[in-house]
Order: sequence, then structure tokens, then C-alpha cells
Amino acid sequence: MVHKPLQTNFDVDYVISYRVPKDDQEAGVRQFRDLIRALAETGLTTEVRRGDETSLLIFVKAADEKIFADVVHRSRIKDWLYGVRQVQPSSDVANVLTSEPLTEAERHRHIHHMICCPREEGGAGITPKHGEWENVEAVFPLHDHVRNKKWLTEFSSKTFLTPDDLDEIRNTVGEKIAYYYAFLQSYFTFMIFPAAFGFSCWILLGNFSPVYAIVNGLWCVVFVEYWKRQEQELAIRWNVKNVSSIEDKRREFVPEKVVTDPVTGEQVSFFPAKKRLQRQLLQIPLAAGCVLGLGAIICTCYAIEIFISEIYDGPLKSVLVFLPTILLTLAVPTMSNFLTTYAEKLTFFENYETQDAHDKAVISKVFVINFITSYTAIFLTSFVYVPFATLIVPYLDIFSLTVRPFAENEKQLQAPSPAAFSINPNRLKNQMIYFAVTAQIVNFAMETVMPVVMQGGKKKVKEIQSQRAEKQGGATPSVADNDPPEEKEFLARVREEAALPEYDVTSDLREMCIQFGYLSLFSVIWPLTPVSYFINNWVELRGDTFKLTIESRRPNPARADSIGPWLNSLEFLAWLGSITSAAVVYMFSGGDGHGPDGRPHQIKLWALLLSVFLSEHIFLVVRMLVRTAISKLDSAAMRKERSERFMVRRKYLEDAGLGHTVKPLASPPNSPLKTESGEQAFTSITRQSIEDEQRRQSSSSSIVAENVTERFWMRQRSWTDSERAGLGMIDIMDLGMTKAKKAQ
Amino acid sequence: MVHKPLQTNFDVDYVISYRVPKDDQEAGVRQFRDLIRALAETGLTTEVRRGDETSLLIFVKAADEKIFADVVHRSRIKDWLYGVRQVQPSSDVANVLTSEPLTEAERHRHIHHMICCPREEGGAGITPKHGEWENVEAVFPLHDHVRNKKWLTEFSSKTFLTPDDLDEIRNTVGEKIAYYYAFLQSYFTFMIFPAAFGFSCWILLGNFSPVYAIVNGLWCVVFVEYWKRQEQELAIRWNVKNVSSIEDKRREFVPEKVVTDPVTGEQVSFFPAKKRLQRQLLQIPLAAGCVLGLGAIICTCYAIEIFISEIYDGPLKSVLVFLPTILLTLAVPTMSNFLTTYAEKLTFFENYETQDAHDKAVISKVFVINFITSYTAIFLTSFVYVPFATLIVPYLDIFSLTVRPFAENEKQLQAPSPAAFSINPNRLKNQMIYFAVTAQIVNFAMETVMPVVMQGGKKKVKEIQSQRAEKQGGATPSVADNDPPEEKEFLARVREEAALPEYDVTSDLREMCIQFGYLSLFSVIWPLTPVSYFINNWVELRGDTFKLTIESRRPNPARADSIGPWLNSLEFLAWLGSITSAAVVYMFSGGDGHGPDGRPHQIKLWALLLSVFLSEHIFLVVRMLVRTAISKLDSAAMRKERSERFMVRRKYLEDAGLGHTVKPLASPPNSPLKTESGEQAFTSITRQSIEDEQRRQSSSSSIVAENVTERFWMRQRSWTDSERAGLGMIDIMDLGMTKAKKAQ
Repeated sequence: MVHKPLQTNFDVDYVISYRVPKDDQEAGVRQFRDLIRALAETGLTTEVRRGDETSLLIFVKAADEKIFADVVHRSRIKDWLYGVRQVQPSSDVANVLTSEPLTEAERHRHIHHMICCPREEGGAGITPKHGEWENVEAVFPLHDHVRNKKWLTEFSSKTFLTPDDLDEIRNTVGEKIAYYYAFLQSYFTFMIFPAAFGFSCWILLGNFSPVYAIVNGLWCVVFVEYWKRQEQELAIRWNVKNVSSIEDKRREFVPEKVVTDPVTGEQVSFFPAKKRLQRQLLQIPLAAGCVLGLGAIICTCYAIEIFISEIYDGPLKSVLVFLPTILLTLAVPTMSNFLTTYAEKLTFFENYETQDAHDKAVISKVFVINFITSYTAIFLTSFVYVPFATLIVPYLDIFSLTVRPFAENEKQLQAPSPAAFSINPNRLKNQMIYFAVTAQIVNFAMETVMPVVMQGGKKKVKEIQSQRAEKQGGATPSVADNDPPEEKEFLARVREEAALPEYDVTSDLREMCIQFGYLSLFSVIWPLTPVSYFINNWVELRGDTFKLTIESRRPNPARADSIGPWLNSLEFLAWLGSITSAAVVYMFSGGDGHGPDGRPHQIKLWALLLSVFLSEHIFLVVRMLVRTAISKLDSAAMRKERSERFMVRRKYLEDAGLGHTVKPLASPPNSPLKTESGEQAFTSITRQSIEDEQRRQSSSSSIVAENVTERFWMRQRSWTDSERAGLGMIDIMDLGMTKAKKAQ
Repeated sequence: MVHKPLQTNFDVDYVISYRVPKDDQEAGVRQFRDLIRALAETGLTTEVRRGDETSLLIFVKAADEKIFADVVHRSRIKDWLYGVRQVQPSSDVANVLTSEPLTEAERHRHIHHMICCPREEGGAGITPKHGEWENVEAVFPLHDHVRNKKWLTEFSSKTFLTPDDLDEIRNTVGEKIAYYYAFLQSYFTFMIFPAAFGFSCWILLGNFSPVYAIVNGLWCVVFVEYWKRQEQELAIRWNVKNVSSIEDKRREFVPEKVVTDPVTGEQVSFFPAKKRLQRQLLQIPLAAGCVLGLGAIICTCYAIEIFISEIYDGPLKSVLVFLPTILLTLAVPTMSNFLTTYAEKLTFFENYETQDAHDKAVISKVFVINFITSYTAIFLTSFVYVPFATLIVPYLDIFSLTVRPFAENEKQLQAPSPAAFSINPNRLKNQMIYFAVTAQIVNFAMETVMPVVMQGGKKKVKEIQSQRAEKQGGATPSVADNDPPEEKEFLARVREEAALPEYDVTSDLREMCIQFGYLSLFSVIWPLTPVSYFINNWVELRGDTFKLTIESRRPNPARADSIGPWLNSLEFLAWLGSITSAAVVYMFSGGDGHGPDGRPHQIKLWALLLSVFLSEHIFLVVRMLVRTAISKLDSAAMRKERSERFMVRRKYLEDAGLGHTVKPLASPPNSPLKTESGEQAFTSITRQSIEDEQRRQSSSSSIVAENVTERFWMRQRSWTDSERAGLGMIDIMDLGMTKAKKAQ
């Protein structure tokens, strides 16, 4: 890395990178003009500088704090209406920014909203790379390199991030990414237990231990349920509860027709849900395509590998054995890219109204694809290769053509007789070790180290090119030549940032989710798996920080109140784990786990099914219990939220002139409320007086009241009358005690 | 029934039945006085009349409409704060009752609230039969006999209730009971399909048909999911959405300590959730007690029955065979009453803060008890008797002592050898027919006919008693003797109503839920089951209406937005049905279903488990799909709700002076927004002019701006400057087209 001066960002809120299209300067000019005007109309100040050869950098900041305060106020009202905030924002717009100061991420979010939200909602309506604005290459804030450097050094020197660290991440890059960090952090912390337990199991109980499987399953349940609760608490801590209910309309949504809402009178874009449901049925062929396409590739490579490693006995075996791996490495990404593209197209076709629904639909499809690519091989080993190898291996002859050119004679290509064939007992364990260790390292290298190398390479190439150009004379002037001297460093930095890719938090979450799957589904095969993941995840978090701060543009902060659909994936994987773990344990545990031919002891189908059935249902019951228990536990954050909500409600009820406590009514005007008088009335009452009273009332009231109902209610004119009448009635009642009294 | 005049209720809102305690007139008088005063202070007018021998009837109505309007307004504000209503109630308290007229049920609910809610919240704080107010026997509104009669005749003459009927029920007795009617109605309507299909299956496929099992399972899923949606729509229709979030504090809640809330400063009753969780652990021994206690009784009676009916071969067999049934009928209710009492005590001990949580906890315990009492016998037949009878029957000798006195010789008490013993192949079917037909009829008789008989009997006894008293001379004067003549009929009616029991909607819901369980779990045994239930449920609804209107006091209307925890029970039963149906079908279907000894064909455990495993997982996948599909379907009610919500939000945003559309900003003062001038600027720009401009800006701004940042933002003073600068940069860019231009 070259030395980057860690200096001011010149108060720049946002940068828009605008690429002038080659071969159509005219259009480029027109769009650029529209862009500048749209920004100005929205209340944003702009400064334009050269980007690279054919791009411009438009620096943006809020033109004046009053307009910006208006935007913030409006957003807060919206938050309040959607239940994100409890307290109605004060109508004092002037103090919006001072009474509740904004974090950096919030400021960026508002500015981004001003740039990108549609004109009808008061924004500039810029949609990078889409429609009218396809030349707008990127809209991004600038990195705070001082903080980035601080993070990198700080995080590397401690084991756990503190809640304050998470808050700082949230304040800098927004809740969506902060949720990923919080998840990774919780996951990492929770991993201590299975790592320690797994290590003990590995030493004491060996592989395929039922004890490990039970503890691991329990851990998975507790972790997923704990995280769900944790999510809620973070949502309260970060004031983003219910944020997902503020649904941003998707720009790409194509309404079938525009109808007038009968209630609001608004013109509403309408797309019938039934039609969408029909389109969603296309997911079935997609899923089938995934299973067949990817499954075929993986199964074929798997079979070839078995053929070469366990049947083929000719020359070059040690080299040829890598052939299927190479095939796999080439074919699977090709296929899954193809499928992902199709999945994305299908999601577009499904035509969701909100961005949120669209993202969810994409993610669930991506999960299916990833599930197949990640777990098929190990599923094959445990549930096909091991139990059925002796049956299947003889038929693998068909793959002999892959190595026929190398074989010296036919015998080297022939499968041994089923009796002579022995299963490789370590295949399953080795595969798990591969996924637990090797794959993680490869992944880290691809994800974090690779981009550094690539960027370095690109820079080198450019340098060489420009040197060569210089040598050949007529050195084209660099775009940086005209930069004002005090901006030189700054602009160089911005140009570098503009060239970086976007940070994609989804792929990082996906990675963790798949890892959780290995842990839940198959870690019983090799109990050191959690230890490896524990170490990996420490590195992972730092690597991701490096990726986020150095290798990517600063992300547009987004709010979120959850890690989204990945949560469902985690739940599903934990559930599936209860099935696979039980099956694996039943098949491989007990004794050495292997018969003389390398096969596990005789598998009884009923016992396998019974253990799976029991394990799954115990899992479901335990999950219900854990869920109930966690839901009943109270926390400081939740208490605080309840109290705040209570305060708001009390305030309203008080404002409505109806305080929490209603004062007792004054006693009726014609009969002062005196206990003494009542007491007296009671003692002086006799049966005679009551009957007199009744007669009096009925006669007097008949004069006043015109109808029966009025007469009914006029017999006892006030509560004191009622009291007196009632006491009289009690007196003449045939109670045990009264008799005793009378007898005296 | 005696003829009841269907006349006015004298505008009486509510009646309080006050029982003067025998042997403590003093206390009775004191409490009565407090009662009248509390009512008067709350703003309620009272009239007192004699009830029966030792009770008073206190007639209550709102003293004046202004106070009542205040109460209603306050409740509406609360509704709004809890999200039950979208629109903030207008602060114009005078027109509260005219702008949104109240239904009868709403009026009753508010008056009931005034009578019963705690004094701190502005009510009279009367808690019938509890604490200070234990002499207050009942608080109830009066029946509208005209409407009751109309319902009974109308409902009996039609097959389906219309939505208007449901609305009328809701307007009269409140949402909680209306939800039961709506549920029963939906269930009845949905039942058409399985009834028709079951009938066809019975004719074409016979019992134990896998086709019926699949269709029935699917139907259960669709029904439960449909009802969940239906609940939501009714909640919107009846404006009770989120009503369950208004949590009424339980009066019986015992706080561990009173703490000061750090946020609100309120004194809050506090009971630690962990402690409650510990107490809830006592549910485990309770559940174990239920299983063991009830299970032991049922299993024993079951075994005795088998012994007598299939082994015993002596005299009086046809009589003795009823012995276990009698035992069962006596022991099970005793045991389950005992367990229910314990369950209620435990729930009290668990000390919930809200009535809602308390009710839920009771219901879930009641469900467990009912589950065991209802389904154990049939579970025993299908999964113990049929597969294992030949193994178990020889050990049933121990029950010989129950009939030993009747036996003539030992041989009559001896079990045949397993080879000779043959299973009664019709036992399972007969049992199902019993539950589908006989039990329903018995139930209806117990529930609806019995009370009529009992009331008639009671009246007869009273009449005879008073006649006898008259004969013996010294006829005690009847309480009705002093009634004013125009009130005579009315008071007689009220006295009768006061003596009626409360209507318990929970037990009716439970009954339906258990019925759904038979349908889901075992109806595959006898496909006519849904036909029987279809007929039964038509009668059931009318019977319940009779019970509600004639045999019970008019209920206090309660709001609800769901049928509550029964929904979970329905889900659970549908799930369990996927398991039992698959098992029953596997065990009994195929061929005649029975071998020569009456046993089903050879059961293979693995095949049984596999069919259960597959059936259950197909069920879960189908449920997910149905759930997703239903959740995505839109409905008129939901659209209406969304629109209303939208209107409210728009109104707020408009009120905040921030309309939905923000007007475009005026162009910067120093440079009018003219497209022509921009166009001109572009065409007249040359590289030279740009560089001049840049130099000019950098020199001029250095004078004005003090620091680098200011200088940065001053280079282009307005958006027109930015535009011009950008256009200049584009012009000097090395674009394909520019070159072509220059070449010209």
C-alpha cells in the first residue's frame, strides 16, 4: 500500500462518480447537466473535478443546514409514524440537528436519500447505473482513514469486540453492516463452548460421539434463539426497531395497471398477487434445475474421483486424482453463476413492489444454490458412498474413459469384485477436515488477499503503461496534472476509492451461514471443527474489516433490524442438523465404527429411521422450550423500551385532559356525602318506613315521569336514596343473624 | 320455558347482583354502602331492588352522557396509542358518541369497564367474588329477548350464517364470542369438502384409504392457515387489530417488590422472569402427573374391557362389559377435575402480570389434560392393541379378579393361547364411530338439554316448597310482592337471568378443537367422520346460540383479535395428524387390511417409520407453501387497512408542513436557471477558457476563503459554475468521439 495522507475530506458528504459514455459525448453532456440541476434543486452543493480519463467526480454536500434539517425532520416523522421511534419529533425544525445530533452514518444516509430517492418524495431521483442515470457509476461517501486505521489496529489487538466497538461501527457504516459484525461477534463468542467441548470430545471420545452430537445440536438451538433475541435488543439499542416496515418502493417494479384507491383517492400502482404467485411457481423448475445441474456435475466429479482414487491402479494416479477436483473447480462456479443469473432474472420477473421483498426472494434462491454446492459432496460421502459403495463401485467402470489414455492395461481400470473392494474409512473425516480447515483458508485468501494482489498488479500495469507511453514520447497529460496543489493528495485518494468495488455484506453473511451449516450438519464427524472455525472467525472479522475499510468503497449506510432471511437459513440448518447428526452418529459410532471391509457395522434401516425420528422431535421440543424460556426472560433494553413507550402513552392521555387518575366525583348536589347520615339512616330504618318510602316514591314519581322507564329511574333520585332503599331491603331480609337479633 | 314478556329493559345498562352474607349483616351493610358510593363516584346512576331472598339487584346506567363520553374518548385514545385504531380520535369530546356511534356491545364494554376497572384508572374497582367485593355475586348486562328470539328462529332456518349475522353477534355480545361463531362457521363451511370427499371415499375406497389420508391432511393445513388469515381479516373488519397488546393487569398478581422505574419514575410492581420460569418448571411434574394419573386410569379400564369382552367367557358378560365404561365415566372426570384444579393453582402460583398471559397458561394446561382424556383410548387401540394384542393379552389374567365373582369356573377367566386368540378387527372402527357420532350426541345432550331439564326441575322443587310452606300456614311473603306493578314482569325476568350461569366460550372452543383433533388424527379410520361432524356442527351452532341466549346470563362483551391459544392447538393437532394418519394407513390399509387372525398384515418397523417420516416432512413442506401462498394473497380488508394507514401517515406529513411532494428549489440567486445559457456555455467552452477559469477561481477564492475546505467549496460558487466546469472537463476528455470530431 502506498502511503495515504490521513487528512481532511473537505467536508464532502458524498461523491458521485460520473462516467462520460464513449462514443456519445452529446448524451453524456445532457445527462451531466440534468444531474447537476437535479442535485441543485434538491438542495445540494456541488463541486466537479476530473475522475480518471473519462469520468467526473461530483462532490456533494448539503447546501444549507436548514434544508438538511427539514429532510432529517421529515425522516423522523416518518420513523415515528411507522413505529420506529416512540416519541413524536418536536415540530421545532430549527433545532432538529442540535437536539438529537446525527451520527456520521445517519448523515450519510440522509444525504444518500436526498440524492437517490424519487423526485416525488423530494429527492434528486438519481439511480446509479439504472435507466435515465445509467452513466452515474457510483454514489458513495468517503472513507475516514484515521478511524479505519484505528479499527484495524484495535481489532487486531483484542479477542472480543466490545458493545462500544459495535456502536462505533454502526455509527460509521450503518446498521446493516453493524448487524453483520454483531452476528459474527456473537457467533464467535458462542463458539468458545463447542470449541472447548469439541476439543475435549476429540481427545476423550473420538469422532462420531453421540454426546458431542447432542451437545452440538443443543448449542445450535440455543445460539439461533439467542441471536434472535440479541437482534431485537440491538434494534432497541440502535433505535431501528420496525425499520423493515418502512418499505422503499422498488424502482424497477412494473405495475400491471394504475388504479385509484377507493379510500385514499391516490393513484396506486397495482400488480395482482395471484399473478406473482403464478410466476413464483417458476421457482420449482429453478430448484429442479439447481438440483439436477449442480447435482449432476458434483456427482459425476465425485464418481470420477472415487474411480481414480480407489479403482484405478495405473500410472500417474497421484496426478490424475486431482483431475476431478479441477473439473469441479471449473464447472461448479460456471454452473452456479449461470443459475444465480437465472435466479436473479426470475426474481425480477416476479416483480416485487419493495426492495426488501426483492432482496429476500434473491437471498432465498441464492441459499438453495449455495446449499447444493456446499453440502452435496459430503452428503454423498455419508449417505451414498459409505453405505452403498460396494453396490455402486462396480458400475463406476463407465468413468474409465477419463483415464483410459494413461492406463497400461485393462486390469488397471477394472473394479475389484465387491468382496475385494474396501471402503476408504477416512474419506468422510478427510472431507470434513477439508471443509473445516483448507476451504476456510482458501476462502480467506480468495476474499481478502486476492484483491490486494490484484490491485497491486493493476497499478503496476498502469505504471508500466504510462512509462512506456512516456518513453514513446508525447506523454498524454495525466488527469491529476490540473489538480490544485492543496487538493492533489485528496483527489488522488478519492480517485483510488472510486475505483474500488462495493462492499457486499450479503456474501459475508452467506459465508457465515454456510459455515454454521457445516457445524450443525456434520461437525460430529470431526469434533475439532468448531476449534478450527473459532480460529477462522477471529481472522475473518479482521479480514472483513480490512476488506471493508481498505479494499472497498465506503458503503452507503443502510438501516436494518435483523440479519434478514439468513436467520431462516440458520434455523433450517439447525433443524436439518438434528437429522443428519443422528444419522451420521447411528451409522458410524459404536466400536471402531468400521467393519473389516471399512464399512460401518451393519446398518438397520429401522434403527436409523428411529434415531432420526427421535432426534428430530427431541430437537423440536427442545427448540420450543428454549424459545419459550428466552422469550420470557426480560432484559434491560426491553424494560427501557417498555418504559419509554409507557411514558409516551401517559403523556398523550394526560394531554387529552384525561389524567391517569380520575378524581372522584363530587357527591350529588341534593345529598351531601356524609357517612354519619348514612349510618343514621340505616339505624333508624324500620320495615314500616321502607314501605312508606316505596309508596311515597311511586306516587311522587308518577307525577314527574311521563313513561315507565323514567319512572323506573326516578324512584331513587340520588345515590343516597339508593343506599337508603337498599339498606332497608337488607334489614327485612330473612338472614340467619337477623332472626337471632330479633329473638333477643 | 315460561312465557317471558319481550319488553323494555328500562334503559338499564348493567345489573349488579349483590348477595348479603348470611350471619354477617353488618359486613353486608358496610360493603353495600361502599358499593353504592363507588358506583356513584364513577358516574353511574343506581336503582336498588330486591333480588331473591338474600340478594339485592343494583341497576346501573351511566349518570350522564358527558361523563360516559369522556370514558369512551379515553378508551379510544388508548386504542389509538396501542395501534388498535389508525386515526387519532378528535379532541372534540362533546361529539364522541355521535360522530362514532357505539354498538350495544361497546356500550356494555365501557360500562363494565367503569364498574370493574381499578380506581386508579377511573373505574369503581368492583371485582366480583374477589377480595373486598366477594359479596358481589355477578355483574352482567340484560338480555335483549327480542333479538335473542330472532336469532334462534333465523339461525335455525338457514344453513350458513352471513357475515352480517356475525357482525350482529359481534355488536351484541362482543368480539370474543363473535370469534367463536366465526370460527365455527368457517369450520362448518370448510367441512363440506371433507364430508363430501369422505362420503365418496367410504363408498369407493373403504376405510384406511391413503387417498383420503392425504386429502384430509391437506385439508387440515389449508383450513388452519385459512383461519389464521380469516382471523386477521375479521380483526380489521371489527377494528380489533392489536387489541391483545392492550394488556389488562391481573388483579391477583403479587409483585415480589415495587421498584422505581429509572426511566419513567413510576412505581412499578416487579416480579422476576427467572423466578417465574423456575415456577413454570413445575409444569413438568404436572404433565407427568396427567400422563401417569389419567393414563393409568384409562389403560386399566381399557385392559379390563378387553379382558371382559375378549377373554372372559362366563355369565353376565353382556352386562359386565359395561363395567369398565362405568369405571371410566366415574374416574376420568374426577381425575381430570383434580388435575385441572392443580393446573389452575399452579397457574396462580406462576403469578402472571396480565390476564391474557394467565388465561393462555391455563388453556395450554387444559389442552394437555383434554388431549390425554380424549385421545388415549384410540391411541391404545391403534398402536398397542392391534399390533401387540397377541403378546399382551396373556398377561391380562391379572384383571380376572374384576369378574371372578361372576365366573363359574377358572376356564372362563383364562386367556386363550396366543395362537388361538384373534383380534377384534372392528374395535378400532367402532371406537371411531363412537367418537364421531355417539360421543357428540351425548355431549350435546349434556351441554344443552341437561341445563333445561335441571332448571325446570329446580323451578318445580321451588314451587312445591313454597306450596308446602303455604299449606303449613305462615306463608313467608315473596320478594316479588313489593314490586311496583309496572316493574313486576321486568324484575321477574331479571331475577331469572341473575340465577343463570355464565356463558363460557372457552369450553365451546375446546370442544371444537378436540373435534378437529379426531378429524385430523384418526378420521382415516372411518371416512364418514367428517359427515357426522358436519351435521353435528350445524346443530352445535344452534345449540350454542340457545345456551348463550336462554341458558346463560348475557356475557360481558370482551374484545379479542383471535381465538387465542386454541390456534396453536389446532396447528399442533394438524401436525400430529400427519404422523398418526400415515401410521394408521400403513398399518391397516392394503388388501383387506387384516390377516387371518384379525391382525393387520405383517408390520415392518422400517416401513412404518419411513412412511411416518415422509408424511410428516411432506406435511411440513406443504404447510410452508400454503402459508407462503396465503400470506401473499391480498384481500379487500387488507387493502382497505393499508389505505387507511397511508391516509393517516400522509395527513401527518402534510401537517408537519412537509407535503408529499417537495417543490423544486429556486435556482441560485446569482445565476438564473436557463437552459439556453447552459447550452451556450457548453458550445463556447474551449480548453483555454477552462484553464483560465480554473486559474481565476483558485486565485479569487484564495482571497475569500480562509482555510482549505472553504477554498475547496468556493471554486465553483453555484451549480452553474459546477456545470460549466464539468462540461469543460468533458470537452477535453479523450473520448472516442471527441477524437473523431477533432479529426474532422
